[in-house]
Amino acid sequence: MDARERIERALEMALAGRQAMGCPPGLAAAVHYAVFPGGARVRPRLCLAVAAACGERGPGIADGAAAAIELLHCASLVHDDLPCFDDAPTRRGKASVHCAFGERLAVLAGDALIVTAFEVLGRSAASTPARLVPLLATITSSVGMPTGIVAGQAWECESQVVLDDYQRAKTGSLFAAAAVAGAQAAGADATPWRALGERLGEAYQVADDIQDVASAPEQIGKPTGRDRMLGRPSAVEQFGLMGAVQRVKDLVAAAVEAVPVCAGAGSLRMLIQAESQRILPRDLARLAA
Amino acid sequence: MDARERIERALEMALAGRQAMGCPPGLAAAVHYAVFPGGARVRPRLCLAVAAACGERGPGIADGAAAAIELLHCASLVHDDLPCFDDAPTRRGKASVHCAFGERLAVLAGDALIVTAFEVLGRSAASTPARLVPLLATITSSVGMPTGIVAGQAWECESQVVLDDYQRAKTGSLFAAAAVAGAQAAGADATPWRALGERLGEAYQVADDIQDVASAPEQIGKPTGRDRMLGRPSAVEQFGLMGAVQRVKDLVAAAVEAVPVCAGAGSLRMLIQAESQRILPRDLARLAA
Repeated sequence: MDARERIERALEMALAGRQAMGCPPGLAAAVHYAVFPGGARVRPRLCLAVAAACGERGPGIADGAAAAIELLHCASLVHDDLPCFDDAPTRRGKASVHCAFGERLAVLAGDALIVTAFEVLGRSAASTPARLVPLLATITSSVGMPTGIVAGQAWECESQVVLDDYQRAKTGSLFAAAAVAGAQAAGADATPWRALGERLGEAYQVADDIQDVASAPEQIGKPTGRDRMLGRPSAVEQFGLMGAVQRVKDLVAAAVEAVPVCAGAGSLRMLIQAESQRILPRDLARLAA
Repeated sequence: MDARERIERALEMALAGRQAMGCPPGLAAAVHYAVFPGGARVRPRLCLAVAAACGERGPGIADGAAAAIELLHCASLVHDDLPCFDDAPTRRGKASVHCAFGERLAVLAGDALIVTAFEVLGRSAASTPARLVPLLATITSSVGMPTGIVAGQAWECESQVVLDDYQRAKTGSLFAAAAVAGAQAAGADATPWRALGERLGEAYQVADDIQDVASAPEQIGKPTGRDRMLGRPSAVEQFGLMGAVQRVKDLVAAAVEAVPVCAGAGSLRMLIQAESQRILPRDLARLAA
C-alpha cells in the first residue's frame, strides 16, 4: 500500500460509521465533505515519508499522526473559509462547507475535526503509548497557541503583523509538525527533522501566495486575488512575483539540504524534488528555471 | 490545596505566558477572558473528586484531565454563544467573547481552547503515559462525534431531535467523561463510574432548563428565556416546571446511589448532596422539598 492509500484509509477509518452510530446526520455529512475528496494531502505524506526514512514500517502510530495532521488542516480550511474570515464560496473546486451546509455546521464541523484528530492519534498509539506524549506535544503546539495555525489565523485580526511570524504560524508550523511527528512516530530523534518541515512549509506558503496572484480559480479550486482584497500580508507583495518564485526554489533547495543523515535520505530527497515541481504555476516555474 | 485551587492553578498554568511567547495579543486576551473568572467549575471538580475517591493523591494527570475538561467546556460556551447559534450577549455576568472581542477571535479562541485542552492533558501525562491513551479516548469521545458535545450542539441544526439524545450529548457526555477520567487518572477501573457522571450531567441539564425559565438573567449571568425563543427542546416543556424540579432531585438521588464502592465513597456522596443544593433556584427547591 503506498503512502497515498495509507492516508486515505486512515482518514476513512477516522470518520467511518459516524452517522450509523447516532451522529446528527448534518454534522456527519459536513465533516465527510470537508475531508473527501482531499487536496494534495501534502502534510500527511511528508509525515509518512519522514517516518519511512526513519525506518518505520507498516500501519500504526505514523498513520494516526498523519491522519490527525490532515484532519487539523481540513479543520483550519473550514474555519478560515467562514463568512467572518475569508467568506470563501469555493474550496477544492466545490462549494465551501459553510456554503454547502450553513455557517453553524461549518463551525461545528471544524470543531469536530479538531477533536477527531486527537481521537485518531490516541487510538493509533494503543500499542506504543510512550510515543503518544511527544507526538501530542508536537501536534498541539503546531495548531494552537502561541505559534500554531490558530495563532497564525489570529494574526489576521491584528493591525500590526510581521510577515515571517504570520506565515511561520499559519503554514510552517503544521509542516514542521508533520516532519517531526514522522520521526517521533518511528521512535527516532526528531530534533534534526524540524528544519526540513519548516523550509517546506515556507515554500508552500510562498507558492500559495503566488497562486493567489498568478493562477485562475479553476486551476486551484478556490478564489484568487484574495490576499490583496483582504489586505493580507503576501510574499508576492514583499518580494515581487519573480522574486517570490525564486524564493520557493531556494526554500525547496534548503529543504533538500536539511534532510538529516538516515537510511532513507536519498529517496526522501528525490521525493521532495519531485513534489516541489507541482507547487508553482507551470509557466512561472519555467521562466525562473 | 483544595480542589478548587488545584483547578484554578492548572488552568492558569495551561494559559500561562502565552502572550509573552509571541501569541497574537487579541487571541491570548480572548482565551483568557473565556476561562477567567470561571463558573462553578463543576465538571473538573467532579473529575478531581472521583480521582480522590479512587485514591489519587497530589498533582499530576488528574489535574491535566480536569483542566482539559474545563477548557473544552469553555470552548463550547464560546462557540455556542456565536451569532450563528445563540447570539448571546452575556455569559457568566459579562459580555460574551464575540461581543467583547469580535466574532473572528471568538471562533479562534474556541479552537485554541480545544487544542490547549489536549496539550495540557498530554503534558500532565509525561510520567504516566500508559494512562494517556484511555484518558484521551474518554475525553475526545465526550466532546466530538458521534455523541459528544459538538454532536449535541449539531442536533440543534436538525429538524427532528430526541430530547434524551440531545441532552445526553450536549451536557451528559462531558459529565460522564469527568467521572470516568477521574477514575482513569487514578489508575482505577473506570467502568463503574460512568453512571454517576451521566446522572449528574442530566441533573445539571434539567436544572439549566429550569433556570432558563425561572431565574432572572442577573442571577445566572446570562440571558433567560432562550430555549423557548430559539425553539430548543427543554425539560420544562416536557415535564412542566415542578415535574422538572422533581426530576433533578430524582437524578441527584440516583447519582448518589451510583457511587461505586471505594475508600472515599462516603465523602463523595456527601459532596454530591451538598453541591446539588446549589443548582436549583432556592424557592423552587423549597417548594419541591
